[in-house]
Formats: sequence, C-alpha cells, structure tokens
Amino acid sequence: MVNVVVVQNDPVFGNVSGNLEAVSRMLSERQVPRPDLIVLSELFASGYQFVSVSEVKELSEKVSGPDAGPTGSFMKNLSRETKGLVVGGFPCQKDGRVTNAAAVFKNGELLTVYDKVHLFDAENRWFSPGEGPLCLVDTDFGPMGVMICFDWLFPEVARSLALSGALLIAHPANWVLPFGPSGMILRSVENRIFTLTANRVGTESRGGLSPLTYIGQSQVVAPSGEVLARAPRETAAILEVSFDPARARNKTVASESDAFRQRRPALYHL
Amino acid sequence: MVNVVVVQNDPVFGNVSGNLEAVSRMLSERQVPRPDLIVLSELFASGYQFVSVSEVKELSEKVSGPDAGPTGSFMKNLSRETKGLVVGGFPCQKDGRVTNAAAVFKNGELLTVYDKVHLFDAENRWFSPGEGPLCLVDTDFGPMGVMICFDWLFPEVARSLALSGALLIAHPANWVLPFGPSGMILRSVENRIFTLTANRVGTESRGGLSPLTYIGQSQVVAPSGEVLARAPRETAAILEVSFDPARARNKTVASESDAFRQRRPALYHL
Repeated sequence: MVNVVVVQNDPVFGNVSGNLEAVSRMLSERQVPRPDLIVLSELFASGYQFVSVSEVKELSEKVSGPDAGPTGSFMKNLSRETKGLVVGGFPCQKDGRVTNAAAVFKNGELLTVYDKVHLFDAENRWFSPGEGPLCLVDTDFGPMGVMICFDWLFPEVARSLALSGALLIAHPANWVLPFGPSGMILRSVENRIFTLTANRVGTESRGGLSPLTYIGQSQVVAPSGEVLARAPRETAAILEVSFDPARARNKTVASESDAFRQRRPALYHL
Repeated sequence: MVNVVVVQNDPVFGNVSGNLEAVSRMLSERQVPRPDLIVLSELFASGYQFVSVSEVKELSEKVSGPDAGPTGSFMKNLSRETKGLVVGGFPCQKDGRVTNAAAVFKNGELLTVYDKVHLFDAENRWFSPGEGPLCLVDTDFGPMGVMICFDWLFPEVARSLALSGALLIAHPANWVLPFGPSGMILRSVENRIFTLTANRVGTESRGGLSPLTYIGQSQVVAPSGEVLARAPRETAAILEVSFDPARARNKTVASESDAFRQRRPALYHL
C-alpha cells in the first residue's frame, strides 16, 4: 500500500513565498507524516494567469543546482522530510526558454523534470512546449507517469504512459474547463490505472484578461473508476488516500475482457 | 443541418419479429418523417444474452441477398422509406462465423457491414471479432464512423475514426457498465465530434447466467461535450435531434488550443 497526499491550494498570483507557506500549513495537517507521494498543482506557487513574457521570466525558476529557485527548494526539502516522492508544477527556466514544468523529487534528490507537451490556450504565448519524452518515473512501488493539466485531453498521453507500464499518473492541473474530473475518471477506467489530479481553486483576473476560475475537484481515482477521494470545488483541501498500485497491473474489465490484451493496434490510425 | 433519430428499445430475447414491430411502432411517433440518419441499438432485434453457440447461430442472419434475414430486410426497408441512412446491430452470418455487426443502409442499399472489433465478456464465446478496417462511411453530410458498444472503451477507435475525418460516430450499444454515457461525452470532447449512442433498456436473465441490466441513457453529444438529448435509464424512447455536422470540422478547444493540431504523435507510444 502507498500513502498519497494530493494538495488542492489557492495561490495568490506572484506571491511565491506566501503560496509556499500556505502549502506548508496545509501539509502540516496531514495524518500520515511520511506519505510515499505528494502531488501539488500546476504552477502551484507562481499562479497561472500571466500577462506578459517578462512576468513569466521573472517568476520562472531553476529547479536545482546553486541557483535553484524557491519552488524547487521547497519540493526538495519536502521530499527530504517525507523521504518520499513530491511532484509539483512550476515555470521552469531552461536554456533561455521557459516551460510549464513538473519536477519529481525523491528524498531530497531531483529525479526528473517534465515539460508540459500540450499547452493550453494563452500558455502558448508564455511557454515553450515540451519536446518529450513523456514522463515515466521508476519508483519503489512501480512505474509512475506524470502529465500536466491539458495533457489529459489527449488520450494518447495517459494511454502511452499506461502502455509503458505506469500504474499511476500524478497530474498537476489548473483546470478551468468542466470536463476534467469526469475525463480523468475515464482515463483511469480505459487504462485501468490510478490517477491523482492536484487542481487549484480561486479566480484570477489580471491585466484586463477574462477571469479564470479554477474548478477544484482534485481527485484520486482507482483503475475501476471509483473516486477514492475528491476535494471540493471552491476551497483549498488536502486529500489523503492509501491504495495498492499493483491493482493497476490487472487490466481486466470483465471476466473475459481485458483493456490491454484486446487492443488491435494494427486497425488503429493514430 | 441533419435530422437524426436514436432509438432506445426494450427487446425481448429471441422475439425478432416482435422486436422489429416494437421499433416500427416507436418510429411511427417520430416528428421528422425522413430523418437523415436513424441509429438503432446493438443486436436490437435479437436480444443480447445468448447462452449457447447454437442459439447464436439460430438467431444470426445474412444481411442482404436472396437469403437476407428479417433484421437486414427491416433496416433496408426503413432506409428506403426515409431515403436516409439506417445503422443498427445484428448477429451476422459470415463464412460460417457469426460476428456482432452493425449494418449501414442508405435509401434501400446496403453500404457496409462493420464487425465489432472489441468483444465484451461472454461475447468472446459467441462471436468472431471483427478483422477491420474500422468503419468510416461517406455520407451526404460528411464522413461518419460506426463503432459498437465496448469499442468505445478503447480510445483508439473514436480517435482513429475522427482523425480519418469522421464528423460523427453512430454507436449502437447494449451498455451494462456505468461509464458509457460520461465516457462518450469525453469521446466527443477529445475528438470534437458528434456521437450518437443508441442503447437499450431492460434486464435479461437467461440460462442461469448473472442478470444483465441495460442502462439506457442513449444520447447525442456535440463536439463541445454538450448533451443534445438523452433518453431515460429504464424506458424505451426515441430521441430526435438536428445539428450541423460541419461543426465537427472545427477542432478548437480554446482560442489558442486545438485538439488535433496540438497532437504530438512522435512522442506517443501506442
């Protein structure tokens, strides 16, 4: 069994240190001191609704090394404290570009950084899309995929990760469209994997742009489609759930139906 | 604009002539005398819960030619009457095998027969799986895909059809699992196409097998995910909807996001 914590926060745009403190306070109320995995939302400390390239640059960070920014350092320290995995989103400085990224830390070590491949709407103005590969991380409890928010709409992402062995997908998000929660249930069901979405709440309305209201409903879904936990729509919350990732090795849909063995790749045009 | 009719029926196992009459009565109440497309459920005239191979053989039919069975003849005549398309499911005799098939008739002519590729549970005992290709039909209002029931769970099917140009998918079903209705909303959303599911209602409990309760909720979903019409869970019903299939040519999810152009096939492992 693994113990996971999903953090649904309510960041204030640009107030990185305040947002990190708020996440710390939320996490201090957890029941399990050393969860195997903590999932934080997309851009959880910077906020989401950028209005200029210079603003994006200013809030972007290096994730590790001597110039590591506050968000990477926070995740690193948190993972050292729990001796487990921490996944969370931040605007990542990389060779003069900025990506919408998720870092994966384990016990104080950076395992990998995933750059979001499918950028949503105005993100295309602020971020460089990830060049891949999709993000699959080996963990003590089996392979874990990572994808970010809008990646979910492309069924190929969760499918590719699951076919490559992912038993669970950690999914930092800043959902504004209504289909995410039911959509991620389907990603679990069609791939028979656990999915853990950390969304945020609150509204951002900056620089004359249309307001963005984030829909909360962070959730943990089992391979059967059962919602093991779901956060409210409008308030910050943490979810704590235990499950056995090995359940996701079983791709049985019904006694004589299997979600993977019955695939017919030769007939698909993808 | 096309006018479509989706028929959610309540067949009695094995009573083919009675089931065809019941569908005729339901259709006699339609508002539009000549709908462009009528979608009937999977195995809509035979019933679903077979208990032996001999029973499957007995109820299987040829779809056309001098030995055409009653279900094919019914669909043919219906399409001649409406001068439009009719899609419906039946157990299809084919070279000594039986497939779980859907026929597509237009104005009295058989256009094609699709054999279900992904068989659900006990169907694996009764039917030969389809050998492809997936079913894409040219119509006056653009390319139409056809898939049958459990095909929906494999995201590759709707995706392949949509990438091949399908603006809508006609989807005869006999859903028993709960995820179909929300799942098909997602198939519309991720592919920005119309989906038309004709499910059935009722319970079958034959030959000591576990009872199967069909969950109704036949529906027509727009590319945006809007449910244009949905039938009840437990009673037979027809849905009549008009929509413009050309809306499905637009793959825009948000002003700067596109469900197709943003795909990154080189990064997927499928």
